[in-house]
Amino acid sequence: MSIITLTTDYGLKDHFVGALKGKILSEYSEATIIDISHDVDPFNTSEASYIIGASYFSFPKGTVHLIGVDIERNKENQHIAMQWNDHYFICADNGILSMLTQKIVPQKIVFINIHDRLPGDASDLDVFIKVACHIAKGGLLNVIGKETQSIKQITELQSIVSNDGNSLKGYVSYIDHFGNVVTNISKKQFLEVARGRQYEIVMKPKSIKTILPNYSAIASSEKYPIKTYEGEKLAIFNEAGFLEIAIFRSNPSKVGSANSLLGLNYRDTILIQFKN
Amino acid sequence: MSIITLTTDYGLKDHFVGALKGKILSEYSEATIIDISHDVDPFNTSEASYIIGASYFSFPKGTVHLIGVDIERNKENQHIAMQWNDHYFICADNGILSMLTQKIVPQKIVFINIHDRLPGDASDLDVFIKVACHIAKGGLLNVIGKETQSIKQITELQSIVSNDGNSLKGYVSYIDHFGNVVTNISKKQFLEVARGRQYEIVMKPKSIKTILPNYSAIASSEKYPIKTYEGEKLAIFNEAGFLEIAIFRSNPSKVGSANSLLGLNYRDTILIQFKN
Amino acid sequence: MSIITLTTDYGLKDHFVGALKGKILSEYSEATIIDISHDVDPFNTSEASYIIGASYFSFPKGTVHLIGVDIERNKENQHIAMQWNDHYFICADNGILSMLTQKIVPQKIVFINIHDRLPGDASDLDVFIKVACHIAKGGLLNVIGKETQSIKQITELQSIVSNDGNSLKGYVSYIDHFGNVVTNISKKQFLEVARGRQYEIVMKPKSIKTILPNYSAIASSEKYPIKTYEGEKLAIFNEAGFLEIAIFRSNPSKVGSANSLLGLNYRDTILIQFKN
Repeated sequence: MSIITLTTDYGLKDHFVGALKGKILSEYSEATIIDISHDVDPFNTSEASYIIGASYFSFPKGTVHLIGVDIERNKENQHIAMQWNDHYFICADNGILSMLTQKIVPQKIVFINIHDRLPGDASDLDVFIKVACHIAKGGLLNVIGKETQSIKQITELQSIVSNDGNSLKGYVSYIDHFGNVVTNISKKQFLEVARGRQYEIVMKPKSIKTILPNYSAIASSEKYPIKTYEGEKLAIFNEAGFLEIAIFRSNPSKVGSANSLLGLNYRDTILIQFKN
Repeated sequence: MSIITLTTDYGLKDHFVGALKGKILSEYSEATIIDISHDVDPFNTSEASYIIGASYFSFPKGTVHLIGVDIERNKENQHIAMQWNDHYFICADNGILSMLTQKIVPQKIVFINIHDRLPGDASDLDVFIKVACHIAKGGLLNVIGKETQSIKQITELQSIVSNDGNSLKGYVSYIDHFGNVVTNISKKQFLEVARGRQYEIVMKPKSIKTILPNYSAIASSEKYPIKTYEGEKLAIFNEAGFLEIAIFRSNPSKVGSANSLLGLNYRDTILIQFKN
Repeated sequence: MSIITLTTDYGLKDHFVGALKGKILSEYSEATIIDISHDVDPFNTSEASYIIGASYFSFPKGTVHLIGVDIERNKENQHIAMQWNDHYFICADNGILSMLTQKIVPQKIVFINIHDRLPGDASDLDVFIKVACHIAKGGLLNVIGKETQSIKQITELQSIVSNDGNSLKGYVSYIDHFGNVVTNISKKQFLEVARGRQYEIVMKPKSIKTILPNYSAIASSEKYPIKTYEGEKLAIFNEAGFLEIAIFRSNPSKVGSANSLLGLNYRDTILIQFKN
């Protein structure tokens, strides 16, 4: 009996999310339903991809992740269900899962083919609900779909190592609630390129020369109280494993954030220079 | 043992919704509580009415729907509980339920009369919680109220058929998270008036001549990729059964929406002309 | 088996809250998790303090309240768990709990000391999750921490009685979803100072001379319909026990609110004059 998580762009004002949960409970009254986010930017599959990639591993193995972003089945988008890293994902084949599958090979992928078995007025979401409940109850993927080997790849901006190996260029891939700026440079890639060398994250007017283990580490000096450091910029690897540029104790609507104060926006470049 | 749903205008920042759930669980520790919306426009009973009408049927029969909008009991508003279409609704008699009762006759309505049985500092919401838990546990309406035959009717703008039967005029009744514009013209009424005739939904600069079965149907041509159609206007009957004017893949904060791009606002007129 | 409540400044868009719940369920699959708020103003411990103080008592005794605001453990902030008034609270020792402990002496406070027992990459939140699940399962505080007698006090603005006992000065401590303005003047303090005397809450252009038992009481006259009173200012003691200045049926985005119409902002003064 598994958890079903929900990640959508439906927002919380309309009745959509409530109705979705009502339908899940109508199908499977014992379901444990957990919201991941319903505030994905509308139709932004790249954002949905980051959010699900940063959270799935906090759930127990066997959890079923329903992703309701851009789900209409059409000539370009099939419906898929995937078993990957011992979790299950249900979404449209619109590239959302390619971020995951680029890292680890899926255990099984199926094109969902139960559409003809549902009532004529069943919506795309009804199909996902049926499949999610089937899997959460312990059902097999083969029962609700036809196996396939490949899914659609999103061609997102990739982080790039320079030819001489002395710099690493990434991009802002997500801006969080605190206005902190998440890049697509992973800790793993950074360590591989750095090989122990000194580095600086190039920024005006002053580069960042140390990636901290946590936000408060900026205030490690015993001389000054922590409050002194509010508003200073810093870099950490966030808990999803990506380089993040942050403002210490940022508050977007008051003191400002990395997004507003440093002028870093979605898809902007972040450059790391290594010293020889 | 039934589900209790919550629809309120309390917002999600304050402690109100959490406290409401805490009180329900204090009264009935086994309760399954599902949020429908807490972002109803403050005191907007018309919006609450649309949201509950569009979602109640997604829940199992027997579900208890607590509606916390404009609930203070006063000389004009009594507290009511209603059994209708095998669901239960608890709210103030402020017109919210009249949208439902205009379609189907209620099974039972009671004016709640347990106020004197609660502690002196019990709030209006405490009364609703007591009643909701009573019903969810399988209790009878007669135990918590006195039967009545009629409830307050909201006199909302109604959709109107012209004398010659050649046009149907409705109004914008709700604007959703995607900026899509929902009208009060139901699919049922449309089909009755249309009698198979051609029609156009009158819009500047170009009317809509087809109501689509789903959003993606706008891209049914095999010639162009789906992306080509982003930003085009279209009409569908939404899953609540009402005519909706939408922008394909709309995003209110980016490309715009039917609300912003077509200038359609709450209570604006929508006209359908039929051809003879 | 207790409820675990969540009060954080993580917002609802990012994956943080979903991931937090996933980790709790991974640790304790039977947990009942209830959101109090995730929209606390970032790093605003004073706001978190108000929200938890206004809601904890709506939950059953034994409930575990996890407060995720400003939780990084550092040279100034230890992690604490407190048993108080038969509830449990887990947070950083940043002053959030001092509002509670100023009223009632805690039953037990411990500095959490399990950090070394967790994996090296465990975050501060992971520590809180471990402790919350331990307590919710019925575990003892002494197992996860070292007892202490005192916690950090926030020196918030205090309400003040004038030397002659004829006035009471408080401050705006919270502004709610309806734009209603909550002060730090409690009903208890008001009654002690008033000793049955007449009073006025000093406001331009016209003071408020009666604190109402509920919002609708403003419309107690049988002469006019309730709608007549929309937009009028009033005062009540809210359900958390504090003096609140409100606009009857306020809607911040439409008619305005006490916050916008009366120009009352966070930390502004509210003065009550008593007559002899």
